[in-house]
Amino acid sequence: MIKAGIVGGTGYTGVELLRLLVAHPEVELTVITSRAEKGIKVDELFPNLRGRVELAFVEPDDAMLKSCDVVFFATPNGTAMKSVPALLEAGVKVIDLAADFRLRQVEDWERWYGMPHVCPQLLTEAVYGLPEVNREAIRKARLVANPGCYPTAVQLGFLPLLEAGAVDPQSLIADAKSGVSGAGRKAEVNILFCEASDNFKAYNVPAHRHWPEIRQGLMAMTNGLVDLVFVPHLTPMIRGIHATLYATLTDPNVDLQTLFEKRYVAEPFVDVLPPKSHPETRSVRGVNQCRLAVHRPQNGKTVVVLSVIDNLVKGAAGQAVQNMNLMFGLPETAGLKEVALLP
Amino acid sequence: MIKAGIVGGTGYTGVELLRLLVAHPEVELTVITSRAEKGIKVDELFPNLRGRVELAFVEPDDAMLKSCDVVFFATPNGTAMKSVPALLEAGVKVIDLAADFRLRQVEDWERWYGMPHVCPQLLTEAVYGLPEVNREAIRKARLVANPGCYPTAVQLGFLPLLEAGAVDPQSLIADAKSGVSGAGRKAEVNILFCEASDNFKAYNVPAHRHWPEIRQGLMAMTNGLVDLVFVPHLTPMIRGIHATLYATLTDPNVDLQTLFEKRYVAEPFVDVLPPKSHPETRSVRGVNQCRLAVHRPQNGKTVVVLSVIDNLVKGAAGQAVQNMNLMFGLPETAGLKEVALLP
Amino acid sequence: MIKAGIVGGTGYTGVELLRLLVAHPEVELTVITSRAEKGIKVDELFPNLRGRVELAFVEPDDAMLKSCDVVFFATPNGTAMKSVPALLEAGVKVIDLAADFRLRQVEDWERWYGMPHVCPQLLTEAVYGLPEVNREAIRKARLVANPGCYPTAVQLGFLPLLEAGAVDPQSLIADAKSGVSGAGRKAEVNILFCEASDNFKAYNVPAHRHWPEIRQGLMAMTNGLVDLVFVPHLTPMIRGIHATLYATLTDPNVDLQTLFEKRYVAEPFVDVLPPKSHPETRSVRGVNQCRLAVHRPQNGKTVVVLSVIDNLVKGAAGQAVQNMNLMFGLPETAGLKEVALLP
Amino acid sequence: MIKAGIVGGTGYTGVELLRLLVAHPEVELTVITSRAEKGIKVDELFPNLRGRVELAFVEPDDAMLKSCDVVFFATPNGTAMKSVPALLEAGVKVIDLAADFRLRQVEDWERWYGMPHVCPQLLTEAVYGLPEVNREAIRKARLVANPGCYPTAVQLGFLPLLEAGAVDPQSLIADAKSGVSGAGRKAEVNILFCEASDNFKAYNVPAHRHWPEIRQGLMAMTNGLVDLVFVPHLTPMIRGIHATLYATLTDPNVDLQTLFEKRYVAEPFVDVLPPKSHPETRSVRGVNQCRLAVHRPQNGKTVVVLSVIDNLVKGAAGQAVQNMNLMFGLPETAGLKEVALLP
Repeated sequence: MIKAGIVGGTGYTGVELLRLLVAHPEVELTVITSRAEKGIKVDELFPNLRGRVELAFVEPDDAMLKSCDVVFFATPNGTAMKSVPALLEAGVKVIDLAADFRLRQVEDWERWYGMPHVCPQLLTEAVYGLPEVNREAIRKARLVANPGCYPTAVQLGFLPLLEAGAVDPQSLIADAKSGVSGAGRKAEVNILFCEASDNFKAYNVPAHRHWPEIRQGLMAMTNGLVDLVFVPHLTPMIRGIHATLYATLTDPNVDLQTLFEKRYVAEPFVDVLPPKSHPETRSVRGVNQCRLAVHRPQNGKTVVVLSVIDNLVKGAAGQAVQNMNLMFGLPETAGLKEVALLP
Repeated sequence: MIKAGIVGGTGYTGVELLRLLVAHPEVELTVITSRAEKGIKVDELFPNLRGRVELAFVEPDDAMLKSCDVVFFATPNGTAMKSVPALLEAGVKVIDLAADFRLRQVEDWERWYGMPHVCPQLLTEAVYGLPEVNREAIRKARLVANPGCYPTAVQLGFLPLLEAGAVDPQSLIADAKSGVSGAGRKAEVNILFCEASDNFKAYNVPAHRHWPEIRQGLMAMTNGLVDLVFVPHLTPMIRGIHATLYATLTDPNVDLQTLFEKRYVAEPFVDVLPPKSHPETRSVRGVNQCRLAVHRPQNGKTVVVLSVIDNLVKGAAGQAVQNMNLMFGLPETAGLKEVALLP
Repeated sequence: MIKAGIVGGTGYTGVELLRLLVAHPEVELTVITSRAEKGIKVDELFPNLRGRVELAFVEPDDAMLKSCDVVFFATPNGTAMKSVPALLEAGVKVIDLAADFRLRQVEDWERWYGMPHVCPQLLTEAVYGLPEVNREAIRKARLVANPGCYPTAVQLGFLPLLEAGAVDPQSLIADAKSGVSGAGRKAEVNILFCEASDNFKAYNVPAHRHWPEIRQGLMAMTNGLVDLVFVPHLTPMIRGIHATLYATLTDPNVDLQTLFEKRYVAEPFVDVLPPKSHPETRSVRGVNQCRLAVHRPQNGKTVVVLSVIDNLVKGAAGQAVQNMNLMFGLPETAGLKEVALLP
Repeated sequence: MIKAGIVGGTGYTGVELLRLLVAHPEVELTVITSRAEKGIKVDELFPNLRGRVELAFVEPDDAMLKSCDVVFFATPNGTAMKSVPALLEAGVKVIDLAADFRLRQVEDWERWYGMPHVCPQLLTEAVYGLPEVNREAIRKARLVANPGCYPTAVQLGFLPLLEAGAVDPQSLIADAKSGVSGAGRKAEVNILFCEASDNFKAYNVPAHRHWPEIRQGLMAMTNGLVDLVFVPHLTPMIRGIHATLYATLTDPNVDLQTLFEKRYVAEPFVDVLPPKSHPETRSVRGVNQCRLAVHRPQNGKTVVVLSVIDNLVKGAAGQAVQNMNLMFGLPETAGLKEVALLP
């Protein structure tokens, strides 16, 4: 059994990670820390875990964390980087669900996250945890930067097109819609029920921190410059991301359906739907799955990709478990076989 | 492996049964029938099952059903009774998720369901599938009448009080609130998104078919007459029932918390919360669990019980699987160990 | 034109009051105060008011408020009582939408609200602003205590029964369900979209501050003791209260439908539905209306009343405007003639 | 008073039209027809209209309709065209809220709507009722084709850019999200609460009937060919459309904010938000308003316009009333002055 610890498990990615790890056949959850909630039993905060998790939140404790095989950080940005070097040194593998190790250039990171990075030397060692792109590197990694939710949905949608050179990398538009859980479990007025329900809006159109992360990933796929417009929106549902992607085709004769099917034929967690399909976010609710469909309206010059994930699973905790499975030589799908809850 | 068939699996209890059986370690799903959808692949109708169910819907077929060990009916009321006698004769065990075998008196059944019953002799043989009341009888049953969703939530809430004689059975009020999935997957205007969302209403206050079912169960607990007022409401959520139960105490000194905890201490699927708790429907979303809390406001003469279930799981498909486990001598919790999806 | 001021208009009752006053033909809005938001334009906080309200929030300012004809307090409990005496002395009429003047006994108020009352002498002068009960007193009042949302829905539902002596006042149960806006526009985790949507729960079952307010009102109707059980619930919708009321009939021959219709025949804002009806909260969305239906299930001893209001209108801002109309001798329906938004 | 009739008022545009006309100071509603609901009182179907509309639905009746000054068609596509010629001949003005007169080319119409057009000669006479483009023609029109909901949001967003030649008309993308009421009040499974809530999906990506309507409008603005990709999505809210529009700038120095503000400065129902804004659909809930914001992310080559309307108001019934006001020489804002309901 792999001994797992969680730092900062009081948010939505934290409770989702708990839900998945509790059911994982090869994992024993040994410690979960939270400064704010120390002493509180986990199942008091999250009643769905009653009878399944007996732990209480404890103060962050180096000794306990160092005795783990793997530690997950489900903390605000800027927290993990303070503890990661010591954990790696102690031989613990680390998966950061926040953004501390997602950008490779320290200047980029510091500009977008507005603080100095305390262990920039780890930015190049950290492996970006998108298994469909970096599977082999993840297997060998000590430190995995788990991708953001939007970046997962957008990159998986553009990947076959960019790898094949089928679209102009200067023409990329990602119009993305997220459920409200993407904003976290924070006491803020703008995500109150009465503000976010029966309402739809874009946000952060001038600049969003996932833009440089996505662009970095897309550039790696195409080995060149990328022009990306990224517009995130808030939609009144709990879970789910729907990314609608647009790009200009370079080759009018490419068989888009085959391109996508071939690229993902061996991927356990990416599902290409039949032609003319429209994936629904609820079809992946609670599961580690990306569902894709590819269209070419009016047989024109623009390809449209529809990409859905559960932002808390394939966009966060599920992908973290998938990465853990790879890092520990387990079957990639271990603990990730649930069926989506529908309706 | 138990060979299981489903008749009429195109509604919400059907897809939920599929979700649970697909993940059940001891069950092989061999046939699923639907006259309306014959030839359609199951995962075309329910995209959450892509990659997990390869079956297509077939026309109801006696031979195929007779080769099953167990057949579940997830059909409209009045359908199962036509096929059940022949299946039982062929040695197949049957679990009916509809209402055909829930009432013991044929006159009651015919009055409330508005049609003649075609196999009234089975009404007394059928075991009412509430394991917390009828566990031993279910183990030996050939035919189980799976309880309705409201009846499950209401009966589990009143059970400790009535068995102990702690309340006046002439004083029972059940104010119940259901998510919209309780109304089924039917093309009806009143359950459209634009009719049911951002709205709350009572319905069927003059008479609801679950009233005689609940009353029959409560009378068995108290061995006498029961005066029950039952008011169902529609609440804008997908899954979940919250029953708020009121009764007049006969003994002002009873320790209500202890009464409930003792009654359910050994029950795997009933969870009594600590004093002063308020169970949330989402804490049981997707799982076979009933959560209860008991209150006595202002220390007065009225006890208030709060009871929540997922209407599609403990109120339908999950309870059916629990019954199947009992009927086949499996561990009662087999295939029913998921953690509720929260948020 | 009546010059109106609002103290503390940054919550949901505040914006609703703004929406109604802006459209009121006899009112000029002259000042709106908020310590936290001073300097911010009102339409920046509430974009629905763009082009309709040019004011900005200002610091509470005695001179400006004293130049008003009427001042509305849409503040947290305990705020209005500090300013009301001086305003009354200056000849300003006051309508308090909070609870500072709702209870007549100062000991009750201090126990339930947990602070000393600074102007207890006004508790007996203040008129409880439920026009269907206190219309004449409201016309002459300097100070109106606008009722709570639950108390409005519950009292209007029980009123005909208690006045007529048709039910046992020791048998009252109010099972009430509220939309989330009833909890206010506060940055609190438990009313986040991801906590409150797709979920249903009771809360404050041991004790809720509206219980003494309701009980005080019901006792005035019956001139005697009342035994009331009050259970509030949170339901995933923005606006609306649905109160389901239960009481034991004292006279089995009473004609309930006629009793209700007669009591409310002249009331502009109470609508008794035909027999066997089920009022929906959305039928009063955005309007100053209470809709009622009365049932007697199984022709038994228990009467069931269904009562719906919009908690922000008839349960708060709309009732405040209705009270203002009465206090200033305007037609009672002035500014309150909108049609509910459906769907 | 203008005598107004409604044909087919049982859907959501019908009830919205009723809500607006009931409150219109210059309109008397004289007849409302519905074959399916004849004899039913309007307020029985739509309880928000209790006490405000005394009419019952009647069978379509030529004489009654011909005595109206204006007749609104809120019927399925293909219905209005059968009755309009006779009404026009009788001197009645007609506003069609369906699509019968929206496309100017009969071949286009017949291809997209799949039936022969019975009065093609009226296609060129009919005025497309987008007042911000065709105000003068609407004033003189006998027959107005009220625009579709998506077309209204999309055209108002692109209009300043195309008129000014600021973008390449071959580069237009409209990613549009609609509330569920856009699908109408029809008994269909895919718009049930349990299918559409907590879910997000695109639909009709290969082809949607609003595509040719939008393209026709955009071509008129630019006097040339237009390449438009239009992707509609269903979002779990009742009302509202959010169109996110993308186009490639032709002039990198254009002042986008000024361009939009100037174009709409005199428009009563189009509101350009300040720079860096994100309009919310709820800010126009229930009102005849379009709110726009214009962005240029990363100061790049792509302009992003955010456009919101209430699909039932500015996208249907409200725009119809605005058109009626113009056709009858009334103030354009008559009956359209409500404040949006928020929250």
